[in-house]
Amino acid sequence: MTESLLVVGSVAFDSIETRAGKRDEILGGAATFISLAASQLCKVRLVAVVGERDFPDEHVRLLASRGVDLAGLERVPGRTFRWAGAYADDFSSRRTLDTQLGVFASFSPKIPAGYATSKYVMLGNINPDLQLAVLDAVRGDHFVATDTMNLWINTAREALDAVMRRTDLLTINDEEAFLLTGERQIARAAAEVRRMGPKAVIIKRGEHGAFLFHERGVFFAPAFPLDDVVDPTGAGDSFAGGLMGHLASENRTDFGALKRGMLCGAAIASATCEAFGVERTAQLTRAGIDERVATLTALTSLDN
Amino acid sequence: MTESLLVVGSVAFDSIETRAGKRDEILGGAATFISLAASQLCKVRLVAVVGERDFPDEHVRLLASRGVDLAGLERVPGRTFRWAGAYADDFSSRRTLDTQLGVFASFSPKIPAGYATSKYVMLGNINPDLQLAVLDAVRGDHFVATDTMNLWINTAREALDAVMRRTDLLTINDEEAFLLTGERQIARAAAEVRRMGPKAVIIKRGEHGAFLFHERGVFFAPAFPLDDVVDPTGAGDSFAGGLMGHLASENRTDFGALKRGMLCGAAIASATCEAFGVERTAQLTRAGIDERVATLTALTSLDN
Repeated sequence: MTESLLVVGSVAFDSIETRAGKRDEILGGAATFISLAASQLCKVRLVAVVGERDFPDEHVRLLASRGVDLAGLERVPGRTFRWAGAYADDFSSRRTLDTQLGVFASFSPKIPAGYATSKYVMLGNINPDLQLAVLDAVRGDHFVATDTMNLWINTAREALDAVMRRTDLLTINDEEAFLLTGERQIARAAAEVRRMGPKAVIIKRGEHGAFLFHERGVFFAPAFPLDDVVDPTGAGDSFAGGLMGHLASENRTDFGALKRGMLCGAAIASATCEAFGVERTAQLTRAGIDERVATLTALTSLDN
Repeated sequence: MTESLLVVGSVAFDSIETRAGKRDEILGGAATFISLAASQLCKVRLVAVVGERDFPDEHVRLLASRGVDLAGLERVPGRTFRWAGAYADDFSSRRTLDTQLGVFASFSPKIPAGYATSKYVMLGNINPDLQLAVLDAVRGDHFVATDTMNLWINTAREALDAVMRRTDLLTINDEEAFLLTGERQIARAAAEVRRMGPKAVIIKRGEHGAFLFHERGVFFAPAFPLDDVVDPTGAGDSFAGGLMGHLASENRTDFGALKRGMLCGAAIASATCEAFGVERTAQLTRAGIDERVATLTALTSLDN
């Protein structure tokens, strides 16, 4: 039975430069990618904030057309969060050129009554105080996945630790895992994170795939090998969205479900990288996801 | 039926600094790691050169104790090849501190009569003119794997192209693949390499695993996740040695055999990284290899 996924995070305008080109103020933000990625797999409930006047109806229509419940998309006076960045030609690094928090600076997530019993919760990368506020508003049995970043690890550690104690699955990249734990090898870092609360830890390595560390064992999901990367923005969030969408759609959170969820996430993340912004992510069909999952499965299959 | 593997390459003294410590003039060299890695899987025939007086008997005994046929290990007046290097703390790069070619500068591989009908040939990273000389000396049906490096891609391209036309399997790292082809994505680089001759291409990405591109499809072998890396010197050669050792031991070169061979290679490469030089590589038993292969298989298994 398919369950609903509550998604909290940023909805933003991204201005992006890569070797493939340049885009100005296109739809982005962690919650956008997570929601669109999960939308072909389960029902998605979005909690985010945008500017009252500068957020185009076409973006609202796009999200709604993918079945995303927008009752939690708050519109307040001010400007929508804007981010600008430029990627190195080999995509190994990116520079932030500009950040304008706008209405996101005073974001205080409001959980609509209908969302409070969501069985799956994805806390996108926002201030851990806000992540805690969301957890306080959710009732009943639920499975929580959390993302975070260097900024919060460095500046809001106490709140982040509190979030982690209430987190079932932490999804972070390798550098964040090293910063969080002081370890330098991912297996050690994952073991240390698991002592902080989360029963399961996924350490993302971008184009090098992702590791799941779980009481049942370790699993590695390869990244889909792409002929061309156009824009990796949102790939990590697409991965998390696809993963959580799979868990919610199956209403299972065991080791096997997490593994298959990671392949769904890797499949959608690869599509995200093939075009700027959400262009490809928002076009993916269930069949398209399944096809990429099959390719990923074959990639590590020992069958001749 | 187990076949023999002919290995050509360097036997050297390595001086190595890593965050784990420092070693002076320990046994190293591509052919050493390839031979020791393959030695638990098949019969190995080594072709290399060392100094007449400075190469200790204990190294000869070590290789012989692993069953490596040393009829092709030439001893000539002069000093054994020496290399010194230091690794960055995160092992993402290394600096060469010193290179003294010694007797390796005038190395001209001599293939003992008994070696000429070897069915498996591993051309370690040496001057492609020497690789060609080896191929000219081998008779009958044989499967050739070739390694190379930036130096030869930049300075000996014509000879390298001739080697590639006679190579069945090219094993190179991602930077070498990009340099060789001018491509920036591994799938495109692999397709281009396959147009140069090799039916199969393995692109190694160190701790991020290795991709096999083959007419039957693409396979990804993850790297064994290590708690601690001590010294990655020789890991790529150990990988190639384990792979070729597996092929020779099964006398099969099909897609499935290449896949399982890559897991053997990854298993042995991981052991190589756990200690300085050949210390761990030379201790591995067949059971130890099988155990690591089982762990690697589980790492990407979708079973719950």
